[in-house]
Amino acid sequence: MRFPSEGRLDDGVLEREFTLGDVPGILWTPEPVSAPVPLILLGHPGGLRKMYPRLAARARRCAADGFAAVTIELPGSGDRPRLAGAEQARADLRRTLQAGEPVGADLIDRLILPLVDTAVPEWRAVLDSALALPGIGGPVGYSGGVISIGVRLAVVEPRITAAVLFAGSFVPRAILEEARQVTIPLHVLLQWDDEGNDRQAALDLFDAFGSEEKSLNANMGGHTGVPQHAGESASGFFTRHLG
Amino acid sequence: MRFPSEGRLDDGVLEREFTLGDVPGILWTPEPVSAPVPLILLGHPGGLRKMYPRLAARARRCAADGFAAVTIELPGSGDRPRLAGAEQARADLRRTLQAGEPVGADLIDRLILPLVDTAVPEWRAVLDSALALPGIGGPVGYSGGVISIGVRLAVVEPRITAAVLFAGSFVPRAILEEARQVTIPLHVLLQWDDEGNDRQAALDLFDAFGSEEKSLNANMGGHTGVPQHAGESASGFFTRHLG
Repeated sequence: MRFPSEGRLDDGVLEREFTLGDVPGILWTPEPVSAPVPLILLGHPGGLRKMYPRLAARARRCAADGFAAVTIELPGSGDRPRLAGAEQARADLRRTLQAGEPVGADLIDRLILPLVDTAVPEWRAVLDSALALPGIGGPVGYSGGVISIGVRLAVVEPRITAAVLFAGSFVPRAILEEARQVTIPLHVLLQWDDEGNDRQAALDLFDAFGSEEKSLNANMGGHTGVPQHAGESASGFFTRHLG
Repeated sequence: MRFPSEGRLDDGVLEREFTLGDVPGILWTPEPVSAPVPLILLGHPGGLRKMYPRLAARARRCAADGFAAVTIELPGSGDRPRLAGAEQARADLRRTLQAGEPVGADLIDRLILPLVDTAVPEWRAVLDSALALPGIGGPVGYSGGVISIGVRLAVVEPRITAAVLFAGSFVPRAILEEARQVTIPLHVLLQWDDEGNDRQAALDLFDAFGSEEKSLNANMGGHTGVPQHAGESASGFFTRHLG
């Protein structure tokens, strides 16, 4: 992890941009800390610059709860090279949505699976580096979307012990199957009228999770309309499981 | 409201049994109070004696949040006279469930509608009496099941300004229609694997509510397995809306 710059937010949270190989990211740590703190991986739909205000707000909340937070740019987003096939899949998605046709399972696979296959090893490498830093210990939580990345990480990465998943993107059939292998505590956020999300698919995914403890928290409004009290409830979930 | 007895719980909550006409009930008030407190109506599936431990726990939580709480026996339950047709409907339900057959809409109507039609005016009379007592002001919340009673009350009783509804019983078609007229903030609890509840019907009911603010909080486990954190989140909902 290389830290080319260092900044500080208003409320005493240390914010550091970094690169890990070719992947840019941001790390937030609460200061001062007397013991190593848990770490939360902040997932998002891609485009670090555009997402920055919301990510920084979530990171501040993590810091207030005593957690470090880290995020990375998604493969194919921001300044990162396009993913093979992704442009074609996105063009096909636009055409399908404009025509008012249902989004087929094959198209969902082409949109999401290359993203998951590429992003998950990157997240695991970030985890290796971040946990090697002084002041960051564990346990580790994953928070946010792309939900399929969160599902795969929950299955393959044993250091992740709890996850807040945001049901706001298409879910490939293979990921629905992987969901049955997830056993960590889950808190799933669903925006009931999410324009970019298939509600029934999100409910099927929630049902599929193998976790003994899982909660679905559905609220009114569109993709970006998650109410403040839902954030508080997600924060309470991490405090119970990582705190 | 006649108070034949008076008791006190361990933690300074005044508990008073009462009768209103032929209807027995229990009223809990936090002490001491400097100003009139909001009131929460505690719904339940019937059988005050059997339900007492859980009701008293919920009332204690209300008192800790600064609210009074009141409950009454359901028509046809406990020592109250049976409701016309209810015994027959319950026998039909048992037979249907034992045969592994789906519970039809007509049977659901016969099971639930007489209960709603009788209980709702009783709840409103309790509200009149309780709000006339010193120390109890408003606003008023409804909390619990039978969910159809909560829906009807939310439509017809303007003094109820927020409701936590427990999706744990059959819902008649007429109540699904009434749900569209509900506009108060709602927090709906659903036990995902509730043995006595049709999950899809509960999701359809949640979707039907006309309220701009409504949250669905679904958790694992059966009818009585609501986790503690779900109670905390419901408590936070009332504090936001009644506190």
